[in-house]
Amino acid sequence: MTPAEMLAVAVREARTGLASGGVPVGAALFGPDGDLWGSGHNRRVQDGDPTTHGETAAFRAAGRRRSYRGTTMVTTLSPCWYCSGLIRQFNIPAVLIGESRTFTGGHDWLADHGVRVTVLDDPECVRMMTTFIAEHPDLWFEDIGE
Amino acid sequence: MTPAEMLAVAVREARTGLASGGVPVGAALFGPDGDLWGSGHNRRVQDGDPTTHGETAAFRAAGRRRSYRGTTMVTTLSPCWYCSGLIRQFNIPAVLIGESRTFTGGHDWLADHGVRVTVLDDPECVRMMTTFIAEHPDLWFEDIGE
Repeated sequence: MTPAEMLAVAVREARTGLASGGVPVGAALFGPDGDLWGSGHNRRVQDGDPTTHGETAAFRAAGRRRSYRGTTMVTTLSPCWYCSGLIRQFNIPAVLIGESRTFTGGHDWLADHGVRVTVLDDPECVRMMTTFIAEHPDLWFEDIGE
Repeated sequence: MTPAEMLAVAVREARTGLASGGVPVGAALFGPDGDLWGSGHNRRVQDGDPTTHGETAAFRAAGRRRSYRGTTMVTTLSPCWYCSGLIRQFNIPAVLIGESRTFTGGHDWLADHGVRVTVLDDPECVRMMTTFIAEHPDLWFEDIGE
């Protein structure tokens, strides 16, 4: 799969989340062979659950795993510290990010600790978050604890 | 509440987790007035969910909150990078830790970023984790991604 194809899976999740009234951040975890292990989106609104960010939803959907060697976490938005911590703790070696213009979390810190970080600067991801933050600032700042 | 009383809530959660076959790490989030916002324990085994650590379970149980000002996260074990990232992202200002002998996560990093970190070095917490790791090393190393 190309990076654009991998990102498309995360974008689809973000759109699903948006359509159900939620924060439009989606993510997907791919295995070493490019197979999809799991995907998901932020569910703060839908489940009243502040722990379900896109990345944690994708990680949960992948189930219990003994190793994350060779995996790639794909996310529409730069991972916050919480999700960056997940990536570091479980030694996920690569992160593919839709954009980091509207929010920058811990991806530089991950790169400093050896994670391969790619930021695609995808215009559709930027547009989706820009619109969402403008329309729902309270919800967005609640979601990132600001 | 005293630190020992707060820790007792987290220890009770850890014991509940252990009794149901899980990883014995428990946590509790207390509000500014010392009121219990939520508590929980690791549920990797019980729910097949690798995202539910003690701290994330307690945070989830507290529901959606606009601010974590004045809160204290209490946990039986030094928070891993994932849970440390949660604490940093949501600006939880204080962390009370049962022990960090059997595992040390990101609590020094949290202290470097202004979080008030207290390690109680509680013998019961040490005993519980030492026994668990000796009896279930595979499960433990899976839980911390090693």
